[in-house]
Amino acid sequence: MVSTHPLWHDYPNLSQNLNQVEAVINQHIRIKNKKIEAQIRRVAENSGKMLRPVYALLCSQIGPDYDEEKAIAIAAALETLHMATLVHDDVIDEADLRRGQETLHAKKDNRYAIYAGDYLFSICFTILANHTNSVSMLEYNARSMEKVLIGELDQLESRYTSPKSIKRYLARISGKTAQLFALSCYTGAVESNASKRQTRLAYNAGHYIGMAFQIIDDILDYQANDNTLGKPAMADAKNGIYTLPLIYSYQNHATEIDALLTKQSLTSEDLHDLQALIDQADGLSKALQLAKRYTKKALSTIDKLPNGEYKAILKSITEKMLARTM
Amino acid sequence: MVSTHPLWHDYPNLSQNLNQVEAVINQHIRIKNKKIEAQIRRVAENSGKMLRPVYALLCSQIGPDYDEEKAIAIAAALETLHMATLVHDDVIDEADLRRGQETLHAKKDNRYAIYAGDYLFSICFTILANHTNSVSMLEYNARSMEKVLIGELDQLESRYTSPKSIKRYLARISGKTAQLFALSCYTGAVESNASKRQTRLAYNAGHYIGMAFQIIDDILDYQANDNTLGKPAMADAKNGIYTLPLIYSYQNHATEIDALLTKQSLTSEDLHDLQALIDQADGLSKALQLAKRYTKKALSTIDKLPNGEYKAILKSITEKMLARTM
Repeated sequence: MVSTHPLWHDYPNLSQNLNQVEAVINQHIRIKNKKIEAQIRRVAENSGKMLRPVYALLCSQIGPDYDEEKAIAIAAALETLHMATLVHDDVIDEADLRRGQETLHAKKDNRYAIYAGDYLFSICFTILANHTNSVSMLEYNARSMEKVLIGELDQLESRYTSPKSIKRYLARISGKTAQLFALSCYTGAVESNASKRQTRLAYNAGHYIGMAFQIIDDILDYQANDNTLGKPAMADAKNGIYTLPLIYSYQNHATEIDALLTKQSLTSEDLHDLQALIDQADGLSKALQLAKRYTKKALSTIDKLPNGEYKAILKSITEKMLARTM
Repeated sequence: MVSTHPLWHDYPNLSQNLNQVEAVINQHIRIKNKKIEAQIRRVAENSGKMLRPVYALLCSQIGPDYDEEKAIAIAAALETLHMATLVHDDVIDEADLRRGQETLHAKKDNRYAIYAGDYLFSICFTILANHTNSVSMLEYNARSMEKVLIGELDQLESRYTSPKSIKRYLARISGKTAQLFALSCYTGAVESNASKRQTRLAYNAGHYIGMAFQIIDDILDYQANDNTLGKPAMADAKNGIYTLPLIYSYQNHATEIDALLTKQSLTSEDLHDLQALIDQADGLSKALQLAKRYTKKALSTIDKLPNGEYKAILKSITEKMLARTM
């Protein structure tokens, strides 16, 4: 049994449930060829914070019909969906490190990672179908997955284009990141038979959390070095993915930034110059302001949910998580 | 409206239904960014024979409750699943041609194709969930998708290893190809409320058809040139995928074949020598014998299904399709 992330050590029930989530995922990864099975389990075991299952588990306590086993299964399905997207993201980013470990694609090449990700997508639907009576819930999941992928495709499509539009950036991260947080909160709420208003609140809270989360992630990419985040620094800018800090900075330094970005590949000197421009333009703190606004919205939405122990935890972890600086 | 494959021109109802299948798929590919939408529609419109939807449509007439709209939707879902696997296969094969057209990955690079394939997977589940009341049907689909991917992973894992085991080859193509044919026949039968025995027969027929289909495909890869199949000749052998004709030939010419295959990459002379060895060993006709045995099994299984016009068509197209020589 892998121990859960230190973030959850203050919450023994949650920690225990997260261990059960991992167990459910592992039970579903069953392949006759044990070499292949071991490779895929390795991806599954290299779990991060498990934020999506945490939100799904907590929101499963919003409605009157909390069912622990079902909540764990739903959380497992959502984490599997997240893992599948990570495996494919790694191929696409050509990232060699993920959470400090060699990625599957680096180890076994891209080909392997593509099918392994597909396999994890299938497992997600198998687990969900196994634990819900609701076809519409499965449809909701499939549609959410569509939105995630439209966000990812839009990000690819926008690569290396001038970092002009805040609106498009927000639409993109709403798909590629916030949708899965919203889905986690929503699915938990629905399966506990929460009221329509409550499930809507849960969905919105998840959306705001996801938006803040991604903006902070994008800020951290500018602050990271190869050791802190477990991935290379300024990876996004290098890959032509221009995020909020750069978009804000572009408003005042369009010419200088365009001059840098038209280069085929950025040298470390270029990256240094880019960082200096972002510092001048206060790009990072402007982005942080927006993240804080989303965090506030998330917290005030959570406030409107029915009282209970789960709610206190929901608020506390959301505050903690969105205050992270590394 | 794209016209259907010449194979179906003798069957006007079937042709019409296939056009409706394409329409359903297109309706579900809805993306705000029209550039991305157009790219994905392009994959969807470059349809091949549409064999899986054909089998799903015909098997929807096995049971007493034929529902045309539902049958079309199920056929659309299965074709979408097939398209998703094709898009990812193309990335993995690094194939630049598929059905004579430039592949999505060649046009827009691998990154794009990975997410586009994922998007098509989601659409498959959205369509299915939209047209069935049965969670267990969705679970069955997800589990089938798992089997397809385990077959694909096994193929990757076995690349460039001695072509020794017929058993492993058959297990692999049972997953990567036959499962989707079996699923198509099975899903059609179940949704028409066929009896348990009938759905089992439909599943088996689909399995045998898929086995024969893949063996023939593997034979054709040795006979093709760059123009006939719309893909490069002996692509499998070049990619380290050793199929049935080679496995049979290996039984008599292990030393010579091993000597060729240990080379890092095969020159056209090597490929020529390999082809000569396969000719000597009668590898192609031995493989064809096994394909014929599966075809026979398929036909005698179809014979046991309830009589009807659908059954005559089912037999006739299965005979025709499995007699193809290019």
